[in-house]
Amino acid sequence: MIEKRTPIPVPTAQERIMTLARAGEVEKVPITEADDRVLAEAIYADHDIPPFDKSPLDGFAVQSADTENASAETPVYLEVTETVGAGGVAAPVTAPGQAVRVMTGTMMPEGCDAICMFELTKEVTRNNKTMIEITRPFKKGDFVSFKGEETKKGDPLVEAGSDITPGVKALLATFGYPEVPVYRKPVVGIFATGTELLEVDEAMEPGKIRNSNAYMVASQLKKAGAEPRYYGKLADDFDACYDAVAGAISEVDALITTGGVSVGDFDYLPAIYEKLGASVLFNKIAMRPGSVTTAAELDGMPLFGLSGNPSACFVGFELYTRPWIRTLLGAKNPYLIQTKALLGQDFPKANPFTRLIRSETRFDDTGRLTTRPAGFDKSSAVTSLAHTNALTILPGGTRGYKAGDEVDVLLLNEPGSVPLRLPEKNRT
Amino acid sequence: MIEKRTPIPVPTAQERIMTLARAGEVEKVPITEADDRVLAEAIYADHDIPPFDKSPLDGFAVQSADTENASAETPVYLEVTETVGAGGVAAPVTAPGQAVRVMTGTMMPEGCDAICMFELTKEVTRNNKTMIEITRPFKKGDFVSFKGEETKKGDPLVEAGSDITPGVKALLATFGYPEVPVYRKPVVGIFATGTELLEVDEAMEPGKIRNSNAYMVASQLKKAGAEPRYYGKLADDFDACYDAVAGAISEVDALITTGGVSVGDFDYLPAIYEKLGASVLFNKIAMRPGSVTTAAELDGMPLFGLSGNPSACFVGFELYTRPWIRTLLGAKNPYLIQTKALLGQDFPKANPFTRLIRSETRFDDTGRLTTRPAGFDKSSAVTSLAHTNALTILPGGTRGYKAGDEVDVLLLNEPGSVPLRLPEKNRT
Repeated sequence: MIEKRTPIPVPTAQERIMTLARAGEVEKVPITEADDRVLAEAIYADHDIPPFDKSPLDGFAVQSADTENASAETPVYLEVTETVGAGGVAAPVTAPGQAVRVMTGTMMPEGCDAICMFELTKEVTRNNKTMIEITRPFKKGDFVSFKGEETKKGDPLVEAGSDITPGVKALLATFGYPEVPVYRKPVVGIFATGTELLEVDEAMEPGKIRNSNAYMVASQLKKAGAEPRYYGKLADDFDACYDAVAGAISEVDALITTGGVSVGDFDYLPAIYEKLGASVLFNKIAMRPGSVTTAAELDGMPLFGLSGNPSACFVGFELYTRPWIRTLLGAKNPYLIQTKALLGQDFPKANPFTRLIRSETRFDDTGRLTTRPAGFDKSSAVTSLAHTNALTILPGGTRGYKAGDEVDVLLLNEPGSVPLRLPEKNRT
Repeated sequence: MIEKRTPIPVPTAQERIMTLARAGEVEKVPITEADDRVLAEAIYADHDIPPFDKSPLDGFAVQSADTENASAETPVYLEVTETVGAGGVAAPVTAPGQAVRVMTGTMMPEGCDAICMFELTKEVTRNNKTMIEITRPFKKGDFVSFKGEETKKGDPLVEAGSDITPGVKALLATFGYPEVPVYRKPVVGIFATGTELLEVDEAMEPGKIRNSNAYMVASQLKKAGAEPRYYGKLADDFDACYDAVAGAISEVDALITTGGVSVGDFDYLPAIYEKLGASVLFNKIAMRPGSVTTAAELDGMPLFGLSGNPSACFVGFELYTRPWIRTLLGAKNPYLIQTKALLGQDFPKANPFTRLIRSETRFDDTGRLTTRPAGFDKSSAVTSLAHTNALTILPGGTRGYKAGDEVDVLLLNEPGSVPLRLPEKNRT
């Protein structure tokens, strides 16, 4: 009576999904709206940085030859011919004994080859002329920021597939991208299944629970860089479900359903996939929670059948849907960051399947991560997700784990922050 | 001639800024727009989770007393009185020998006290009735998910000041928040100063550079949770600068200027602060880059005078502006996450001031962070910011650092991600 499903390992399920992942389409957005998008073309320097020799200081541009014999005993006096701020262009300095007062960022005046900062000189008036007194020699190039010393024209700077962080934004502005090529956000439809579901604004009723998965998955989609489109709840009626799913498919790049993938009487998704002509990629994974996580393919489009249990739904999204999205967004590494952490408590129970414990991970005083369960650990749990910033991987087939054991964690958010501490000796 | 400024330590400067930080105003947003906002009220459970005893499986709700003597040799047969999906409410079971076919999430039928999953039974037809054959005893409560086992009504779940992650969103939906109380985003004005600045869509000209700071700071503001308002460039003219700044102040919660805070002839910010009647909180910090970072206070409003050098501007924002914003957003820990990392290269040069190296930080194979400079390290550098995910703190007054030394890092973004690896033994 019950369909027999063969569980496959997590990496195998991920590989099957990734056969559907391809680089996405490119669109242009104004630079002011490019935050958190993903760069679709590499950025190359279209000019040198700095674009010209310049003063990195407020000071005087001088001719080093004039200062060769300067000392406290035999100061040299240079005539200040003009004051030029950043953005201005000084007249060429052609006569010996002349200097230009310049500000931070001012292009080096033609004829000058060193900068004397304000602090190393003083201005005096001689013969009704403004002069500076130089009491040390300067070498050619002293304190000058040279054209191209940071970056040369043509240098590759940021790869396609990079997230547009504030630092990347600074480069886009520097190299003149009023419009930025980014990957189009994949549109992902969401259906929640289950007659038991109440929407967030409906009052509680006997036998019913509120629909949290659709809201949670919409947030996960946004965080991953996709655009969620919520189609509402599917009723416990096969034809209505089929029509709704078939109608949505033409409007999205992928479809997520939550619930309806197990072996219950109203779990229609397997039959819907069949009627659509979709191929099932997997319908049982050797993991907890989320062993019923299902995926199918229809003409290259992934159909994600996530569990109706919130914790299982959450994990299924992060392990399978997210890397597909990140690949469409050009990410070089579409998976969650995986690293090592120390277990904060015992897990004495063996489990045949790999467990993905919804966890709270923090740095300890030595910079090591410790990881603890974020709360109630059942597949149906919703409250612990609020405190989850990582998934702790406990491989299946083992005899249990002890506090202090090193385990793998997948990071979802950053660990908790603390005020900036600096050693006391810096309180100068 | 040159104003003498006294450098103060980083933590002292942070403390002075934080005297201006207060919890912000509260507003309500629809749950679908609450992503990445900060919760302004704690969430308490307004009902038990689960809200009723329920079946966590597809199976049959039974009366355990009926199964007391069941075994493979002496199976017990129970009459299936109805099938009830999740969301439905079964009729009370009053007679011995009866069971209800239930799906995952179905409320326990009144009179039943245990769940027998599909896999542990089979359906048979006897006397034209649908029966199930039970071959083992079930105890009261077996496989039942109990009302309140995850959370009890009134339990505190998420603190005010928490970021609204997908997991928090799930809770907001569960506990019926169609509108979510969040902290209003502080509006922060931005002025760039400098005649040398070209906007992103202007062609390069001799002596000029593109304005990257305004775009970068706008991104930093958004990332920190604030709303940027860019007022354009201030010209090198005191009266025009003053009028522009004075006019903007009534429209914002804080004001950022980039550039104009050093000792150059056109560095008007100190004089503007004075004319506004603002008190200078600091104008020299014992740090590199960004020693000229300035802050002033006007009627409780912070005026951030960030450096015009991109790297210095970036660091000044993260150390001083960001924690002020995060405090208005109710964050319990408004500072960047600080932890330990191993230096990936030597820093032989001693420095009297604390250095904040724009760095790329990654987890090594053992879960330790390693940190390396992200590129060109001058205060004026812009390209290295694109590869910066952390600031490495090298305290001042020391003799230099060697590769492998443990240092503090402030995390800005997550380190690089890698594909999910699971031990081979899990490929069951």
